[in-house]
Amino acid sequence: MTAAAVPPSIDPATTRLGWIGAGVMGASMCARLLAAGYRATVFTRTRSKAQPLLDAGAQWAESPAAVTAASDVVFSIVGYPRDVREVHLGDAGTLSTLAAGGVLVDMTTSQPALAVEIAAAAEEKGIAAIDAPVSGGDVGAKAGTLSIMIGGDEATVAALAPLWDAMGKTWVRQGGPGAGQHAKLVNQTLIGGNMVGVCEALLYAHRAGLDLDTVLKSVSSGAAGSWSLSNLGPRMIAGDFAPGFYVEHFLKDMGLALEEARRMNLALPGLALCEQLYHAVAAQGHARSGTHALMLALAQISGVDWQQRA
Amino acid sequence: MTAAAVPPSIDPATTRLGWIGAGVMGASMCARLLAAGYRATVFTRTRSKAQPLLDAGAQWAESPAAVTAASDVVFSIVGYPRDVREVHLGDAGTLSTLAAGGVLVDMTTSQPALAVEIAAAAEEKGIAAIDAPVSGGDVGAKAGTLSIMIGGDEATVAALAPLWDAMGKTWVRQGGPGAGQHAKLVNQTLIGGNMVGVCEALLYAHRAGLDLDTVLKSVSSGAAGSWSLSNLGPRMIAGDFAPGFYVEHFLKDMGLALEEARRMNLALPGLALCEQLYHAVAAQGHARSGTHALMLALAQISGVDWQQRA
Repeated sequence: MTAAAVPPSIDPATTRLGWIGAGVMGASMCARLLAAGYRATVFTRTRSKAQPLLDAGAQWAESPAAVTAASDVVFSIVGYPRDVREVHLGDAGTLSTLAAGGVLVDMTTSQPALAVEIAAAAEEKGIAAIDAPVSGGDVGAKAGTLSIMIGGDEATVAALAPLWDAMGKTWVRQGGPGAGQHAKLVNQTLIGGNMVGVCEALLYAHRAGLDLDTVLKSVSSGAAGSWSLSNLGPRMIAGDFAPGFYVEHFLKDMGLALEEARRMNLALPGLALCEQLYHAVAAQGHARSGTHALMLALAQISGVDWQQRA
Repeated sequence: MTAAAVPPSIDPATTRLGWIGAGVMGASMCARLLAAGYRATVFTRTRSKAQPLLDAGAQWAESPAAVTAASDVVFSIVGYPRDVREVHLGDAGTLSTLAAGGVLVDMTTSQPALAVEIAAAAEEKGIAAIDAPVSGGDVGAKAGTLSIMIGGDEATVAALAPLWDAMGKTWVRQGGPGAGQHAKLVNQTLIGGNMVGVCEALLYAHRAGLDLDTVLKSVSSGAAGSWSLSNLGPRMIAGDFAPGFYVEHFLKDMGLALEEARRMNLALPGLALCEQLYHAVAAQGHARSGTHALMLALAQISGVDWQQRA
């Protein structure tokens, strides 16, 4: 099979989009494409989650393969690498029906090696497969301000510019297949360090008898500052642990990063500790809380009842 | 002895300042007060370091006690808690000569308990002692953009406003004696988490074959962002490990935070790991490098020669 098909020409009037996965992120991202004037055919495991998209004009399809049969560019954003594998490489997966010249874009945070495998299988069929995980959370997905980290064929990535622009504020091609996934795991490794620091620092401040809001005034805007501190610190102080970003998804991401690191013979002791602490967070019943629930687990380790603190 | 003397009235025309310690931070901070029109009497262990201040009009004194004899408000910013103790509580220390109604301000990052001890000893003599460590580095000290974290008598802290304004962009009273030190240790705990995350993330990115500058474009401005990433990440990538902020001073600060945490029965596993990693940084000969030299030690653990990488 010859490589790299001609990059698609993207136009709301003619380009048929497919969308697989309508979770918190996917539903908002697809909605932005619909709002930008694109047609889309949608599949998701729980049909009711797609209803807002159908109400906005999307077509329903009964499987990834059925989505793909009606589409030129197919996006997926699902749960775990095993879901990505099934959606794209499974018997009723996208590659079973997508025509040569089509494009696959997986936006799930998933294994870099799986992205490489899908890209290779796609190339066999004259299809370009792109990995494009995102950062920016539900808020960024709704507002179209995501950071999209992209791996795959350069010309194809460039050709999809109008679609990236509809979903993200920042989109950067990081390299060939898998590079988007690697960049996302870099992103999550950063967040892990920041979260441990924020939780331990605020816990220290509490035990030292400081007023936490007053402490934030001193430390938020200087050399100790971070997005995590400015955005999640106040929620921790308020005792509001609603997700944002689920603990169980962050655990998945850290697991992927550590798995890759092992494969690369790389020791990441800070991330490994962070992941262990998040296992404690999940074990304490907070798997479906926001990532800032790390505070609850760290507090409990030292016998502090964070939610009942004076 | 009665408590809380009348807060001083600060005026460049009449207030006599004392300044003890002319290291990288202290020299710049005192220079800002001189530039704001204040008179100052200066002592530092190595007289040559004070020369720029003397050239700018400051008077030299031969000891902390001699500084204090000529001053109404005396600042100190020295190295370690033992230096703070000697400067203020020693035989030739400030408290041996400062008159009732005077004010001591220690801006060293030091033990909260020592700040409490000095404040109590000062109060016996009708002197207010304030702890006011800073964040913002040499750049912030020069530009007068420091964050000053303050503990001590409320009226006295308020009365010193013109002096805080000359040195800092943000100054916040965190509570009574020691609270400024606690807030600074909160600040350093945050930085520890951020630094571990930044180094491990960039090391991962390198091993994964990503272009590091391109990765920064994806991860710097979103949920993974931090001051450490934006300001020190590029220096790590460039292989420039000049201080900024010395590894050996950061080790001191983390040691203080962990010592306090032990005293408070508080487990800070992330900070403890970070401190251990920084001991490795120092052991590898980087005690006088910038804190971002953590990258060199983490790379070496996994057999990556960061400075010779392709």
